[in-house]
Amino acid sequence: MNIIIDAMGTEKGPGVIIDGINEIAEEINDCKIYLIGDSKLIDESLQLSGKTIIPKHEIIHTDNNITMHDSPTKVLANKMDSSIAVGINLAKDLDNSVFISMGNTGAIMAFSLKIFGRIKGILRPALGTIFPVGRHPLFLDFGATPDCKPEILYQFAIIGSEYMKSAMGIEDPVIGLLSIGSEEKKGSVLTQKTFKMISNDNSLNFYGNIEGNDLFEDKVDVIVCDGFVGNVILKFAEGIIDFIKKGLKEIADSSIISKAGMGLAKKGLKNYFKKLNYDEYGGALLLGVNGISIIGHGNSNAKAISSSVLYGKKLIEHDFINHVKKRIETRSSDEN
Amino acid sequence: MNIIIDAMGTEKGPGVIIDGINEIAEEINDCKIYLIGDSKLIDESLQLSGKTIIPKHEIIHTDNNITMHDSPTKVLANKMDSSIAVGINLAKDLDNSVFISMGNTGAIMAFSLKIFGRIKGILRPALGTIFPVGRHPLFLDFGATPDCKPEILYQFAIIGSEYMKSAMGIEDPVIGLLSIGSEEKKGSVLTQKTFKMISNDNSLNFYGNIEGNDLFEDKVDVIVCDGFVGNVILKFAEGIIDFIKKGLKEIADSSIISKAGMGLAKKGLKNYFKKLNYDEYGGALLLGVNGISIIGHGNSNAKAISSSVLYGKKLIEHDFINHVKKRIETRSSDEN
Repeated sequence: MNIIIDAMGTEKGPGVIIDGINEIAEEINDCKIYLIGDSKLIDESLQLSGKTIIPKHEIIHTDNNITMHDSPTKVLANKMDSSIAVGINLAKDLDNSVFISMGNTGAIMAFSLKIFGRIKGILRPALGTIFPVGRHPLFLDFGATPDCKPEILYQFAIIGSEYMKSAMGIEDPVIGLLSIGSEEKKGSVLTQKTFKMISNDNSLNFYGNIEGNDLFEDKVDVIVCDGFVGNVILKFAEGIIDFIKKGLKEIADSSIISKAGMGLAKKGLKNYFKKLNYDEYGGALLLGVNGISIIGHGNSNAKAISSSVLYGKKLIEHDFINHVKKRIETRSSDEN
Repeated sequence: MNIIIDAMGTEKGPGVIIDGINEIAEEINDCKIYLIGDSKLIDESLQLSGKTIIPKHEIIHTDNNITMHDSPTKVLANKMDSSIAVGINLAKDLDNSVFISMGNTGAIMAFSLKIFGRIKGILRPALGTIFPVGRHPLFLDFGATPDCKPEILYQFAIIGSEYMKSAMGIEDPVIGLLSIGSEEKKGSVLTQKTFKMISNDNSLNFYGNIEGNDLFEDKVDVIVCDGFVGNVILKFAEGIIDFIKKGLKEIADSSIISKAGMGLAKKGLKNYFKKLNYDEYGGALLLGVNGISIIGHGNSNAKAISSSVLYGKKLIEHDFINHVKKRIETRSSDEN
């Protein structure tokens, strides 16, 4: 198995990636690691930290780099020699491979779509991520496809179900459709039509509609929504967590007694907020493309990188892409 | 001015409404209060509490009642003698009036649309509510119109702007369009087209797109989105507040030290969560109809009811409905 990692994507430099790989060296001793990026910088990182890369690996040098400010359409035209493009091209050429980057999400999406292409029959890609509450469901789409049709959301349900089988080992994942009101006839025209399509597919374990507050309940393994709603929700969740952290600081500053109290509760609070972060879940995934692209946060720590690598490995081992292909093909032939 | 209140809507019975009215008796001594509902029950409430209703008032008896479980379409057909229908009919007949209910939102919406009708030129109604963070903006729509066209969202911007002028005394309210990405060209087809329409109206103070995390920032006075996204967000916010309250309890239970700490910080925490509740903001409003319908929570306390009454009075005093009419008319004649 081939784990291809963009060494240029993290805010912290290649060092944190090397740490992330080394932490799980034994678990990935059957994989080959490709580190893509400025080889001088990677070497410097190794020298500075006095570390080596433990698993079997190869460093592939690239000169060009994509920053967080680059526009996806522009990089497509003139950064085919960037670590992201080179990495995805390598992932396409090698069997049993996964590409991982902590870089510019738009650029990774654009190159993945261009180089991997969509899986035959898949109408649109989706960005998926694990929602760290409730049953820890896969939440998709959170931004790849803002304008969806029922067929597109229905395919997201299929892809999500296959992902939870492959990556999480869940036998018969429960699908929830994000809507307003729990009854079939509630919601937008889009969700009402999608409800019917998912209901009619007996191979999917459909819970029905779930509402915004249900996201915190232990109800479903996959949450399906369009990329507009998904992105608004995810940004809102980020905002509220920041807001509450600030609020807790305000509370601590409101009186000496509150300060003392919050001081004592600090460990508990820290552990609590730790539960809400995404590090354990290997970042986001671009789903629907003919290859595996995992997108981590730019400020990922070593733990987050280890997780991405392990999830990527699981997806290869469980033949995730081929499972999706088979499901989409079967569905297409059903329709003919 | 006429304040018409559904006495049957609250979970706590008419007593809490009487308290709410009496608390602001002086501020509304230029209004007449109509209490609509089971006069026997209202009398019993008065006797039990040993209270009287202080402001000028009249009790209008109704036999039929709408519960939270009644479907809006059914009540339209067979509950025209309910406190909600009778109250809205009265608000329609009397000049300078507002209808307030803490009852079934769907039923209040349905009767308001049927009896008041839409303001001429208004395409669809919106549910608006004050978002208790940031600049405390009006957030609309949160559920009346799940499927919107650009013209509809554009009208929501106009209505929202007029509401913030009338109810909050803000001279030139700043409008934000909820979208994904801050640039004009980001978002769904719907928000991109809406962006253009709002931009082209020089009488609106348009901030541009705002994202999910911006809702917590001090950026805008009005947040415009379709009723699907709005409802998902609002339910999500309710869910996350419950989730965090549970989390804080968990933290307190995690160790003796945490428990002691959270105990000390209790007052600060309580004050903090108090800021996040809606009691002060007079509930939700059905906007776009030719009359004022304010919808409170079923579990409203006296404070929430006082607030609803005072906001209702302000909307009458500032001639809110006529301002919206004028704006919509001007716009329609611009187009001809």
